[in-house]
Amino acid sequence: MSEPQSPEPALIIQGDSPTGTRDEDAADGIQHSHRMLSFSDALLSIIATVMILPVTHTEISPEQFDKSIQKLLATRIAVYLMTFLIVTVAWAAHTRLFQVVGKIDDTLALLNLACMMTITFLPFTFSLMVTFPEVPLGIFLFCMCVIAIGAVQALVVVYAFHFPHLLHPQIERSAHRALYRQHILGIVLRGPALCFVAAGFSLFFYPLSYLLMATVIFLPYVSKASSWCKGRLVGPQEPAAHSVEFFTFDLHEPLSKERVEAFSDGVYAIVATLLILDICEDNVPDSKDVKEKFHGSLVAALSEYGPHFLAYFGSFATVGLLWFAHHSLFLHIRKATQSMGLLNTLSLAFVGGLPLAYQQTSAFAQQPQQELESVRVSCAIIFFASIFQFAIWTTALLHEAETLQPSARFGGREHAFMFAKLALYPCVSLLAFASTCFLSRFSAAIFHLTQIAVPFAFLLLRLLVRLALAPLHALQGLSLPAHRSEGSEDDARAPLLPSAY
Amino acid sequence: MSEPQSPEPALIIQGDSPTGTRDEDAADGIQHSHRMLSFSDALLSIIATVMILPVTHTEISPEQFDKSIQKLLATRIAVYLMTFLIVTVAWAAHTRLFQVVGKIDDTLALLNLACMMTITFLPFTFSLMVTFPEVPLGIFLFCMCVIAIGAVQALVVVYAFHFPHLLHPQIERSAHRALYRQHILGIVLRGPALCFVAAGFSLFFYPLSYLLMATVIFLPYVSKASSWCKGRLVGPQEPAAHSVEFFTFDLHEPLSKERVEAFSDGVYAIVATLLILDICEDNVPDSKDVKEKFHGSLVAALSEYGPHFLAYFGSFATVGLLWFAHHSLFLHIRKATQSMGLLNTLSLAFVGGLPLAYQQTSAFAQQPQQELESVRVSCAIIFFASIFQFAIWTTALLHEAETLQPSARFGGREHAFMFAKLALYPCVSLLAFASTCFLSRFSAAIFHLTQIAVPFAFLLLRLLVRLALAPLHALQGLSLPAHRSEGSEDDARAPLLPSAY
Repeated sequence: MSEPQSPEPALIIQGDSPTGTRDEDAADGIQHSHRMLSFSDALLSIIATVMILPVTHTEISPEQFDKSIQKLLATRIAVYLMTFLIVTVAWAAHTRLFQVVGKIDDTLALLNLACMMTITFLPFTFSLMVTFPEVPLGIFLFCMCVIAIGAVQALVVVYAFHFPHLLHPQIERSAHRALYRQHILGIVLRGPALCFVAAGFSLFFYPLSYLLMATVIFLPYVSKASSWCKGRLVGPQEPAAHSVEFFTFDLHEPLSKERVEAFSDGVYAIVATLLILDICEDNVPDSKDVKEKFHGSLVAALSEYGPHFLAYFGSFATVGLLWFAHHSLFLHIRKATQSMGLLNTLSLAFVGGLPLAYQQTSAFAQQPQQELESVRVSCAIIFFASIFQFAIWTTALLHEAETLQPSARFGGREHAFMFAKLALYPCVSLLAFASTCFLSRFSAAIFHLTQIAVPFAFLLLRLLVRLALAPLHALQGLSLPAHRSEGSEDDARAPLLPSAY
Repeated sequence: MSEPQSPEPALIIQGDSPTGTRDEDAADGIQHSHRMLSFSDALLSIIATVMILPVTHTEISPEQFDKSIQKLLATRIAVYLMTFLIVTVAWAAHTRLFQVVGKIDDTLALLNLACMMTITFLPFTFSLMVTFPEVPLGIFLFCMCVIAIGAVQALVVVYAFHFPHLLHPQIERSAHRALYRQHILGIVLRGPALCFVAAGFSLFFYPLSYLLMATVIFLPYVSKASSWCKGRLVGPQEPAAHSVEFFTFDLHEPLSKERVEAFSDGVYAIVATLLILDICEDNVPDSKDVKEKFHGSLVAALSEYGPHFLAYFGSFATVGLLWFAHHSLFLHIRKATQSMGLLNTLSLAFVGGLPLAYQQTSAFAQQPQQELESVRVSCAIIFFASIFQFAIWTTALLHEAETLQPSARFGGREHAFMFAKLALYPCVSLLAFASTCFLSRFSAAIFHLTQIAVPFAFLLLRLLVRLALAPLHALQGLSLPAHRSEGSEDDARAPLLPSAY
């Protein structure tokens, strides 16, 4: 079974069997892993993103923007980026592992929690590393964490192969099960082995440890990129005979689309929510201030914070609509290849930076020059977040037969609209960026009003694309009658009778 | 179709039709709502929980614990509880609404985002209300938000009934569709109408507004409780003839189990992650301090924070295992009734308070008397979080045929173990509380070590329960041969061939 044509590989991989067997499994203490995986996804996405909070909480007053604060800010941004990167690597490894282990029992659930606990500790080791780059303790702790994670994951593998009914059915019934185990253990322990060496070096020659650490983080991407280049240069290699069944399963399989969605949802949700936390902590006026400065008028006191609220609504609209574009995109995607996963990670890293943009545009609302600066930073963050989404789409189009639903491919009904949807944010942010250069009176308020206006642009887009395509389709209909008409007209209006009935 | 016996109502309700129709729907811009609902669940659960952060960030030094700080703390705890309550009410309303609206298109997705944006603004109105209880602005803004949410939801209903293919198939094919619409609009606009009156009163007699607000929040529970009491006293009433088909659908249906799980997962995930945020912000020593106080030894500087790390691991273990107990419990639950949903909400409200417990036990690590106090507070929070989980289980047992899987009912194979699992935390926390009263040398460190030891207790439990039940089962086996043997033995070991193959 090689499942590339099935539109829902995620469901099949996670063994979502019909309800009858689920009842019986639960009776035996064996559980489908779906909920544990969603919980892990939520945890990991929140950890990846939450380290932006120390960045936004850095107090920057425009008067005393000196070197020490600059260094502190750079430190915290570095921690955020490193955390985001390592957590997504850990998440991808976790995804792979639980594509092999299809079901869980209590022991595996507890082992998974232990693994999560160790992962949540990684940001602290980064904080240490970045604050004290010359002291090897941070890197030593980091290596210990990675080794602990590797040990727990190896335990999961050994345990699952000891009780093969926990494995993915394809592996369970395979004749090469021992080979599989060896191979998967190899993958799981590769990083920890490197870290073991790095921990050793950290005791007497720490720069080498940093190099080894970078290898651990970037190894998956480097090996992927090199194999891709090789494939381009040499042409697709025939795999060795015995490894065919072997490698079809775990290594070259795409990431589970369901888990990519869950992880992304977590990032968007936490980013949207961090914003209100700032509003509630900072923008409730002090009752003494209200009495003294504003003669007891709360409305007057709040109107001081007006720009903050505008910034909040603008930022929420942006996060929400970036989620909306992501949602529309993945609705038309059949499966997510590794390169699409990488682009998605990059997009999410910039989405995680949006609270910083919010902070910038609402904190620097006094001086016009700095205001323009901060609007530019915001535009850049939004531009990168959305352009990587667009890149996912173009990458998917390269292999459209495999990766996209028919309606979104070239010539499909939704193709043009999808294109317009994903191109909207890069265009708007570029336009806003350009306006800050040419119009000296372009302000943060205008920027936020633009952000709030974009949702209506989405609604308009659909209308415009329809209008633009109407004459085109009419021409096509004249030249190619009955082309692409089957299966695309009025299906949704027909009474839907899903198999659940 | 009244679906009470189906083990997976959630899947059916959300119209998870086979992949064939999904392809065609996507082509028409109509989308299954699954991912949008998970995203909304994540957002709402994070908003509900994140307001605990201002509580834990309140700086309390043991020396100057004066009135003003006490008042500030009480204020913030009140904001947290009110936010949690109103967000769960909004979440329940959202769940009901999207049980009626089974599919979405772009417009509905955007309307849903608008609804989410308004809900995220509610915590701010609470902050205003609690900080300035005599100024009616807070309550006025709150009412405006509720009215806005109601308006958006009414728009969703009107839109979905205008394009009936978006509705749940059962309603789509119903002859009483107009009646349905009227009824659902009534439910959606009930709260906003009350708030409209409250907003009016807030302008000249605000105490009445607070009363009306309390009505809005507690109305669902009060009406449920009163109907339950009536049912007990008078006996089940026969509904009027025309309303049979009507009411079987939306009002007396249980909450979607899938969404209860998703919401709970979000709360557990954010609570587990808030802890590491504190560690990273507060427990990285300053590089100047390290040089001056500790002669450049980072290890010595970190060992000062030792108790914090112990507290972190202890708290993470507690959150993780409470999730684990919740996960095990809902694995055996077929559907969640409204009273189980209410108990779940109460349990989650205390889980959200766990960061406070962490803060308390790690901040007051100096003075022995206050240390005992804070351990007691932690025990109480853990006790209430776990006892409400236990209450969900006992409530489910009252209607076990409807709500539980066969294996968890009285006499089922997992019943005793489930009981032990859920009773573990209430017992441990009570024991720890008692120890603080009798053993004067019981310290926070011992408390955290206990927390870390509990996972092993879970593993031991399974063994102990098996051992204890073995003679019992042997006796049963002698007296009732072949009883309960079918379908429960060795099923999971048999080759699993789910229909996906």
